[in-house]
Amino acid sequence: MLKDINMRGAMQKMIEGAQDKFCTALSAIDDTPFQEDKWERKEGGGGRTRVLSDGPVLEKAGVNISVVHGTLSEEAMSQMGGGQNAQSREFFATGLSTVIHPRNPFAPTMHANVRYFERGAEDAPEDWWFGGGSDLTPCYLFEEDAQHFHQTWKNICDDSPGADYPHYKQWCDEYFFIPHRQEHRGVGGIFFDNLKSHAPELHFAFIEKIAMALSEAYLPILEKRKDHPYEDAHKEWQEVRRGRYVEFNLVYDRGTRFGLNTDGRIESILMSLPLKARWEYQHQPAPGSHEEKTLETLKTPKDWI
Amino acid sequence: MLKDINMRGAMQKMIEGAQDKFCTALSAIDDTPFQEDKWERKEGGGGRTRVLSDGPVLEKAGVNISVVHGTLSEEAMSQMGGGQNAQSREFFATGLSTVIHPRNPFAPTMHANVRYFERGAEDAPEDWWFGGGSDLTPCYLFEEDAQHFHQTWKNICDDSPGADYPHYKQWCDEYFFIPHRQEHRGVGGIFFDNLKSHAPELHFAFIEKIAMALSEAYLPILEKRKDHPYEDAHKEWQEVRRGRYVEFNLVYDRGTRFGLNTDGRIESILMSLPLKARWEYQHQPAPGSHEEKTLETLKTPKDWI
Repeated sequence: MLKDINMRGAMQKMIEGAQDKFCTALSAIDDTPFQEDKWERKEGGGGRTRVLSDGPVLEKAGVNISVVHGTLSEEAMSQMGGGQNAQSREFFATGLSTVIHPRNPFAPTMHANVRYFERGAEDAPEDWWFGGGSDLTPCYLFEEDAQHFHQTWKNICDDSPGADYPHYKQWCDEYFFIPHRQEHRGVGGIFFDNLKSHAPELHFAFIEKIAMALSEAYLPILEKRKDHPYEDAHKEWQEVRRGRYVEFNLVYDRGTRFGLNTDGRIESILMSLPLKARWEYQHQPAPGSHEEKTLETLKTPKDWI
Repeated sequence: MLKDINMRGAMQKMIEGAQDKFCTALSAIDDTPFQEDKWERKEGGGGRTRVLSDGPVLEKAGVNISVVHGTLSEEAMSQMGGGQNAQSREFFATGLSTVIHPRNPFAPTMHANVRYFERGAEDAPEDWWFGGGSDLTPCYLFEEDAQHFHQTWKNICDDSPGADYPHYKQWCDEYFFIPHRQEHRGVGGIFFDNLKSHAPELHFAFIEKIAMALSEAYLPILEKRKDHPYEDAHKEWQEVRRGRYVEFNLVYDRGTRFGLNTDGRIESILMSLPLKARWEYQHQPAPGSHEEKTLETLKTPKDWI
């Protein structure tokens, strides 16, 4: 297992390249540079966080990579989506994580991540697996945007041995669900965890394609919506919806809670939170409005392809 | 146990009166009525939620009471601060909970709650206990405000057999702590749970005094700060600090998580969240500023009396 390739090194090189590629493309649209922070983790490893704040197109965008290792707490173990074969509490985790919150309320938020885990010592891993996914969160739904987004990921799945779009699409709908609101976070995409059924090189090739296709999946949507006219009321609805994003991430998201429980770099973990969020008591969209139609779709996932 | 007094009925009457009293006082300052919603819980019980939104003085204020019963999940049991003597998963819970977020960034947020629990059937309770407390969360600290707030609760503790201000003050500092920020939520107050060392009537008398003193503890502070001049930058700092409030409530607060896990009325549980919150990447207050001094105090609790 893992003898033919140094997966730790391959992952690191791949996510560095993907981070560069996506940041360059986003900066070009926004005409604003990312702020880069390299950081080290006391218990082992570190990362490179890049955030673009308060640009004309991007209200807050983060593209982070990290390579960390150490010893897991009981709680952190229970938040991992794999590692059931391991006795050791030693772990290695590396990945890229990005969340893009555009300024225009008609442009959706996008999230993606790819990750690779090992449990046990580097020279004798007891378990390894890949995870990742990408989902889209519109405040105002345009069906063609959801279709383009899903189609991009479906094409990559179809082109990758062992990957399964219908399964990962359903998994995404189930994962990005806010039980206390009985709403999904957005219109989904793909989500997968604990991938290890095939040779690691195959899974790696799959997540590499995802990491390299972030621009292709998202930027045509952003280009199309970034200059959509809007008023204060649209911006308020965006803030209400971003409150739901905060609720999901802080209450349910395994990655966020894993980060908080492994003493991760807090500013990198919480870069996923939007610049602004809003909680109005009993906020209800007007009957028949674009807001209400979007909300209905978030309550009942549909097939986009 | 509990034979001399119908505690369920006494609690309900008391919290209804306390809700009326505090809402009347708040409405008078704001010249805005509360919106009242009575609700029922499918599994048993219900409540009366009162929220005042977007007033000239109060940006968002909630004063809620509830009387609920049902069967606890494993997770909800672990989030209760008492009931270790009970085998039964049947529970009864009643209480008042209030969170006041003023508009003026120099006026602090205030939270208080009092509650009474039983485990087991009504005619044969296996365990019972009281809990509650009140804490103050300034964005801009004025020491005299913290002193007045603590003094009010200390006086009530000193006047109540079995109550212990130094203990409850320390408990409050420990409870309202945000580990991932290494900050306390505010300047504390009092917090207590699993109170059952004395006769129930004695504990009831203590929490009744707290519920009836909400105006006395908070309104002199609100009156003093509500018209303090402020600029956009002060308001932004307030939104950043309210982001921390959201983080505490959604990630750590036992009451919030208990509500989410017992299928509580979501709009009543999350009325505690502020109207607006803000997450800026690596926000740092200017050296020597009022913001920085406040933050230093939040990192190291002090004695206010």
